[in-house]
Amino acid sequence: MECYLDNSATTVCSPAATEKMVELLTKEYGNPSSMHQKGMDAENEMRKAAEKIAATLKVQPKEIIFTSGGTESNNLAILGIAKAYKRSGMHVITTQIEHPSVANPFHVLEERGFEVTYLPVDELGHVSLQSLKEVVREDTILVSMMYVNNEIGAIEPISEIGNWLKKEHPNIVFHVDAIQAYGKLLIRPKKEGIDLLSVSGHKIHGPKGSGFLYIKDKIKIKPIIFGGGQQNALRSGTENVPAIAGLGVAAEEIYQNHEEKVEHLYALRDRFIQAISSMDGVSVNGATNHTNACHIVSVSVEGVRAEVLLHALEDRGVYVSAGSACSSNKPAVSSTLKAIGLKENLLDSTVRFSFSIYTTEEEIDYAVEQMKQLIPMLQKYTRH
Amino acid sequence: MECYLDNSATTVCSPAATEKMVELLTKEYGNPSSMHQKGMDAENEMRKAAEKIAATLKVQPKEIIFTSGGTESNNLAILGIAKAYKRSGMHVITTQIEHPSVANPFHVLEERGFEVTYLPVDELGHVSLQSLKEVVREDTILVSMMYVNNEIGAIEPISEIGNWLKKEHPNIVFHVDAIQAYGKLLIRPKKEGIDLLSVSGHKIHGPKGSGFLYIKDKIKIKPIIFGGGQQNALRSGTENVPAIAGLGVAAEEIYQNHEEKVEHLYALRDRFIQAISSMDGVSVNGATNHTNACHIVSVSVEGVRAEVLLHALEDRGVYVSAGSACSSNKPAVSSTLKAIGLKENLLDSTVRFSFSIYTTEEEIDYAVEQMKQLIPMLQKYTRH
Repeated sequence: MECYLDNSATTVCSPAATEKMVELLTKEYGNPSSMHQKGMDAENEMRKAAEKIAATLKVQPKEIIFTSGGTESNNLAILGIAKAYKRSGMHVITTQIEHPSVANPFHVLEERGFEVTYLPVDELGHVSLQSLKEVVREDTILVSMMYVNNEIGAIEPISEIGNWLKKEHPNIVFHVDAIQAYGKLLIRPKKEGIDLLSVSGHKIHGPKGSGFLYIKDKIKIKPIIFGGGQQNALRSGTENVPAIAGLGVAAEEIYQNHEEKVEHLYALRDRFIQAISSMDGVSVNGATNHTNACHIVSVSVEGVRAEVLLHALEDRGVYVSAGSACSSNKPAVSSTLKAIGLKENLLDSTVRFSFSIYTTEEEIDYAVEQMKQLIPMLQKYTRH
Repeated sequence: MECYLDNSATTVCSPAATEKMVELLTKEYGNPSSMHQKGMDAENEMRKAAEKIAATLKVQPKEIIFTSGGTESNNLAILGIAKAYKRSGMHVITTQIEHPSVANPFHVLEERGFEVTYLPVDELGHVSLQSLKEVVREDTILVSMMYVNNEIGAIEPISEIGNWLKKEHPNIVFHVDAIQAYGKLLIRPKKEGIDLLSVSGHKIHGPKGSGFLYIKDKIKIKPIIFGGGQQNALRSGTENVPAIAGLGVAAEEIYQNHEEKVEHLYALRDRFIQAISSMDGVSVNGATNHTNACHIVSVSVEGVRAEVLLHALEDRGVYVSAGSACSSNKPAVSSTLKAIGLKENLLDSTVRFSFSIYTTEEEIDYAVEQMKQLIPMLQKYTRH
């Protein structure tokens, strides 16, 4: 049996999104910048995709800027806002558990003379509004944090933080990395005080190389890629219309019968957690209630190195990640696992299981069965 | 009859490239950063694409960095080299006829304190080595120019310039925007003194959203997008494996029986030029010999605005561009046409015809026939 439980790394592209892409690669292949009908048709496809996406967030289509993926969205948000607002202040805030595509742009800002404050999290991976209140300053221009942590699945109190910022510090821009959240949570930027929201297509059964940044109307932002002035000069380069249209289809699909999908995922997660919790030396990181997302389970296994477990599971057709596996394939020690205070000996004994709407109960049961067989054996023979 | 003669704006994706993409979107959809077999398979696909591309240029696969397209390749090359070498000097050189994805990064460098020299061109759009010799300085760190101009098709003397630079100024980095050249010319970076070469996938029947930057081994360069450290930390973000593999297929295809393809294109071009040259008030911009590329013909029509001609042709199924149409769809006056000294009254009376390997003689004859019918009528009724 093959059992792909690495859906937070990437997902299969849905049949409808793939079909749309093929149509736009091979039939309606115009360049939206061309003034003739084929250009207009391509522009129309982009507009339709923006409308579909905007509808899932209840925002305006013109507030959606297409990018080459989540990493570019995060870079554009953080570097673009810093450039646009640096005359108002050079203090910015993020958290200790961000994905490298957020953490590293902040390191770049440090090199450029910005001061960065990194908020801590509790043992479940949650940031608190209180900790933010303590560090916000007169010269703070940007707060950026993830909605759902990519390693343990913690859901951050975005709405609480966004609304407090809008009320007390309306000039601070609030950016949310929703790459692991979009498609799993209902997100309402306008009600949650979110000014910018990053999304990746390939995490929601859309195409790789697709993504968008929601930018609230009237928020100033500077581009990071320069050229022909496409997308209001915020992202130059011939638009990747096939991927954009595929992303539109995937976004619409993932939010159809959305509650059912989330229930299905929580049921799978709970079934999985319950089954593995009784195993010796096995523990789940993060909350097991609904303050954690429905699709990510971080599991530490005492006495077994993550890589060893990963490859043993792989031999039986079960695909998981060591750490976040969303960055390069030389795993460094995870900053999230450190930040939640995971015991030293478990830091490199932690694997991530991540589910998708296509995951079945049978797959969960199969994965559990393999773990039951493998873990005692690995603990016995590879204890370190 | 439908007659797409706007192939320098974008091309149809080839069946084989599309098929490869679909396979990697829906079957082998792993993330190259994942440590399990699905990740390794994805990494393998990338490696194979890099090998195919490297073979077309006779360079090493590890010298190929994948990007989201030509604009990003040009941005990475220019901004990345400027960052890496600015301690050696802050003078950079480009030309007056570059695409906005080169010209605008140079404007950004000006804002950052660099001094930029813009080389002129002659009336055929050719840069001269002599003009470069006159402006190179001790503190020059970068020369960047296009191989084939996107508006009139002029082929620049890249090999002559590159070899002179390597001999006289080996520390100056030489970047070539080959977006309109790759697939049409045989390019040998190692023999031509080229350090960086930008290529776009969708101009050669590959997928939109694909492209690469050749970076010669040991050339220092800094990234412009930061994150998980993919591709030697030069381009973070989950690699767009389907597009990368599709690009690999397209690159291999376009260089199969390459001489024949180029001959076919020159035959089409010559047939077209000969037929339209006899029309009243019609003139071709740029050279009509092999110092011009095989796929671009810039045509000025006295007394007819480009937009009017474009839409009249469109009504008959012939798709062309006004100016370069590679930038946003509000056409500004073309810097290339100005730089070659085109008469003021022809600046907004110029359209571009661009061919592909799929273009047929019948299409050329059909387009000529429509021009014969339309131009006298338009000259009569819309003279301005």
